[in-house]
Amino acid sequence: MEAFSDGVLAVAITLLVLDLHASAAEPETLATQLQRGWPSFAAYAVSFFVIGVVWINHHAVVNLVAHVDRRLLFYNLLLLFFVSTIPFTTSTLAEYLYPSHGASTSVAVLLYGVSTEGMAVAFTLMLWHMTRAELTTRPVTRQQANRAVLRFGVGTLVYPVVTLVGIISAPTMLLLYAALTAYYAFEQTPILSDRPPRGPQAT
Amino acid sequence: MEAFSDGVLAVAITLLVLDLHASAAEPETLATQLQRGWPSFAAYAVSFFVIGVVWINHHAVVNLVAHVDRRLLFYNLLLLFFVSTIPFTTSTLAEYLYPSHGASTSVAVLLYGVSTEGMAVAFTLMLWHMTRAELTTRPVTRQQANRAVLRFGVGTLVYPVVTLVGIISAPTMLLLYAALTAYYAFEQTPILSDRPPRGPQAT
Amino acid sequence: MEAFSDGVLAVAITLLVLDLHASAAEPETLATQLQRGWPSFAAYAVSFFVIGVVWINHHAVVNLVAHVDRRLLFYNLLLLFFVSTIPFTTSTLAEYLYPSHGASTSVAVLLYGVSTEGMAVAFTLMLWHMTRAELTTRPVTRQQANRAVLRFGVGTLVYPVVTLVGIISAPTMLLLYAALTAYYAFEQTPILSDRPPRGPQAT
Amino acid sequence: MEAFSDGVLAVAITLLVLDLHASAAEPETLATQLQRGWPSFAAYAVSFFVIGVVWINHHAVVNLVAHVDRRLLFYNLLLLFFVSTIPFTTSTLAEYLYPSHGASTSVAVLLYGVSTEGMAVAFTLMLWHMTRAELTTRPVTRQQANRAVLRFGVGTLVYPVVTLVGIISAPTMLLLYAALTAYYAFEQTPILSDRPPRGPQAT
Repeated sequence: MEAFSDGVLAVAITLLVLDLHASAAEPETLATQLQRGWPSFAAYAVSFFVIGVVWINHHAVVNLVAHVDRRLLFYNLLLLFFVSTIPFTTSTLAEYLYPSHGASTSVAVLLYGVSTEGMAVAFTLMLWHMTRAELTTRPVTRQQANRAVLRFGVGTLVYPVVTLVGIISAPTMLLLYAALTAYYAFEQTPILSDRPPRGPQAT
Repeated sequence: MEAFSDGVLAVAITLLVLDLHASAAEPETLATQLQRGWPSFAAYAVSFFVIGVVWINHHAVVNLVAHVDRRLLFYNLLLLFFVSTIPFTTSTLAEYLYPSHGASTSVAVLLYGVSTEGMAVAFTLMLWHMTRAELTTRPVTRQQANRAVLRFGVGTLVYPVVTLVGIISAPTMLLLYAALTAYYAFEQTPILSDRPPRGPQAT
Repeated sequence: MEAFSDGVLAVAITLLVLDLHASAAEPETLATQLQRGWPSFAAYAVSFFVIGVVWINHHAVVNLVAHVDRRLLFYNLLLLFFVSTIPFTTSTLAEYLYPSHGASTSVAVLLYGVSTEGMAVAFTLMLWHMTRAELTTRPVTRQQANRAVLRFGVGTLVYPVVTLVGIISAPTMLLLYAALTAYYAFEQTPILSDRPPRGPQAT
Repeated sequence: MEAFSDGVLAVAITLLVLDLHASAAEPETLATQLQRGWPSFAAYAVSFFVIGVVWINHHAVVNLVAHVDRRLLFYNLLLLFFVSTIPFTTSTLAEYLYPSHGASTSVAVLLYGVSTEGMAVAFTLMLWHMTRAELTTRPVTRQQANRAVLRFGVGTLVYPVVTLVGIISAPTMLLLYAALTAYYAFEQTPILSDRPPRGPQAT
C-alpha cells in the first residue's frame, strides 16, 4: 500500500511545479513576471507543504497497520484522489487569487477547500476504520482510538473554517494553511497515544 | 516487479489531473468554466478509480507470485502499456463527450474501450500464466486457477458491452464504469479461492 | 539504487503519453486526427517497450549486485540520463517521421539513436564495472563476465546500424526497434551464464 | 522516508525533459532549432546531474539513519521542496541564458542559485540534526560529526560564489556546476569518516 501511495504523493507534490513558468517571450522583465506571479509561488509553496504533511501523517499511520483490508485500501484511494486534485485546485487558486476576480475567487477558494477537506475526511475514515476493524500492529484501547480519530477529525472542522476566511481574504487563507502545516509538521504526539496531545513523549 | 508497476500506476493516475484546467484569461467566470468542463471532471474521477482498482487487484495478484519469469514480466509490461494510455484516452473522451461531436464521440468511446479492454486482457493473461506456470506462493488447484481466470476474464467480456452502451450514450458509459469500479473495489473474494465468489471470507 | 531507478524509468515511460493528444477544437474529425497522428502512436508504443526492456534488464542486473560503489551509481545515473531523454527524442521523432521533412527527419533519427545508444553504452559500462570490481552476489568467472559484457555490448553495435537504416526509412527503423524489443523481452538467457546464449535454462 | 524522497527526486529529475521540445510547425529546420536551443540542453544536462548527485548523497545519508524524528522529516521535506523547484528554475535559466536578456539573466541566475543553495542548506541541516540528535546507526564522535557537517556545509558557501560568477557569465556558471557535480559524483570519502577527506578508503 505504501509504495503506490508514496508514488502518488510524490508525483502530485512535484507536478505542482508545472504551474510555475516565466518566458523570455513576455514583454515584461523576469523580475516583473516573478513579482506579478506571486500568487503562483505562494500557492505552490503552501500546497507543497500541505501534501508534505499528508505524507508525514500517512507514513505514521501506515506504520501502525498490520493487516490491510479492501475497505482500508478504498479509503486510502479516496485520500489519494483528493491529493491528486491538489495540482489543479492550487493552479486555479493561484489564477484567481487577486481579489479583482470577484466571485470567481470565492469559487477557487471553495474548490481548494474541497480538496483539503476531502483529504482530511478520507484520512479520518482510514484511522477510524483501522482502529475499529483491529488492523493495527498492537491492540488499541477504545479510548486511544477515540482520541486519535478525534484529533485528526478536528482537521475536518478546521478546514471549512479556513475556507470561510478565504472567501473574505484568499491570501489570509494561504497564511492560515501555512500556519496549520507548520503546526502539524512539528507536532510530536504519537498518533495512537494514551496521553492527551502535547505530552512530553517523542514520536 | 512491484516498485516499477506501482510507479507507472502512480504516475498515470496523477497525470490525469493535467487535463483539468481553468484560466482567469477566459471570458467566462470560474463557475461557468467548471460547469462547462463537467466531462473532464467526470472522466477524471472515473479514470482515477479505474486505475485505482487495477492497482488494488495488481497488488493482490503480485502478492501471490513467488517466482517471476520473462513472460510474466512481459504481460505485466503489456498491462502497464494500456494503463499508461489512460491519460490520453481519458482526455480524448472528455473532449468529445458532448453528443454534438457525432461520430467522433463514438471513436473516443472506442478508444477508451481499447485502453480498458487491453488492461483486462493483459491482467487475465498474467493470472492465467501465473497459475499455469506454477509461479504462485502456494500450490493452486486447476479448479481454483480456472475460477480465478474466469472471474477476471469476465471483465474482458464486460468492457466491450460497456463500450457498446457508450456508443449510444457516452455519459451512461461513464456511470457504468463508476459502478463496475465500486463493485470491484468492495468485492471481498480472494483472487485464488476454492469457493464461488461472494462467499463470506475476508481478503 | 533500485527505488530511484524504478522511479525514473516509471516516470519517463509514463511521460511519453503527454505527446498524444486530440482536440475537439481541431477542424478534423477525431478519426482523421488519429490517422494523421500515427507517427506519434507508433513512436509512443515503440519507446514504451524500449524503456520497458531497459527496466526488465536493469532489474535483472541490479539483482546480481551485492555491493554498490560510487562508480556504479554514476554509470547508473548515466543510464537514467539517456532514459530521461527518451520522451523528448520520441516526440521529436514523431514530429519529423514523415519523409517530407527531408534532412530534419535524419536529424530526428540521429537524435533518437543517441538516446538508445547512450542507454546501451551506459548499461554495458554498468555490467562491465560490476563484474570487474567484483560487486556481484556470487563470484563471476572472467569467461562469464566477458560473455555477459559481450552480449549486451552487441547492442552498442546494433543501434548505430538501426539508426543508419532510419536515415533511409524512419518507419522501418521503428519496426526494427519493435523487433529488437520483442527479442530482448522474450530472451531467456541469464545475464551471467556459463553457457552460450539461447541455452535451455530458465531465467 | 526513502521511498517518498526517491519518488520526488525521480519525478523532478524526469520532469526536466518537459522543457525540451522541437516542432515541425516551426519555420526552422530541426538542426537549427537544436542549435538555437542549446541553453535548454545545457541547463537540462547540468540540472539532471545536480539532482542526481543530491540523490547519491541523500541515499548515503539515509542509510546512516537508524531513527527518524519529526524534525528530520521536516528538514528532508525542505530539501525536497528546493529539489522540486529545479524544473522551474532550470527552464527559467535556459530561457534567459543568452546575455542579450540583460538584468533578467542575473535574476534567472539568482533564482537558480536559490534552488541549489536551499538544497545545500537543507542537506546540511539534515546531517547536523542527525548527528546531534543521535539518530545514526552507529555512534558518531563529535569530531566525525563536525567534519561531515563542515564538509557538506562547504557547499553552502560554494554555491553563492558560483552564483556570483553566473551574474558575470551564466554559461560559465553552468560549467562550474558541471565540474562540482563531477567532483561530488566521484568523491570516495564516506560521509561519517574519522580521516580527512580524500583518504584512500572505499565507500
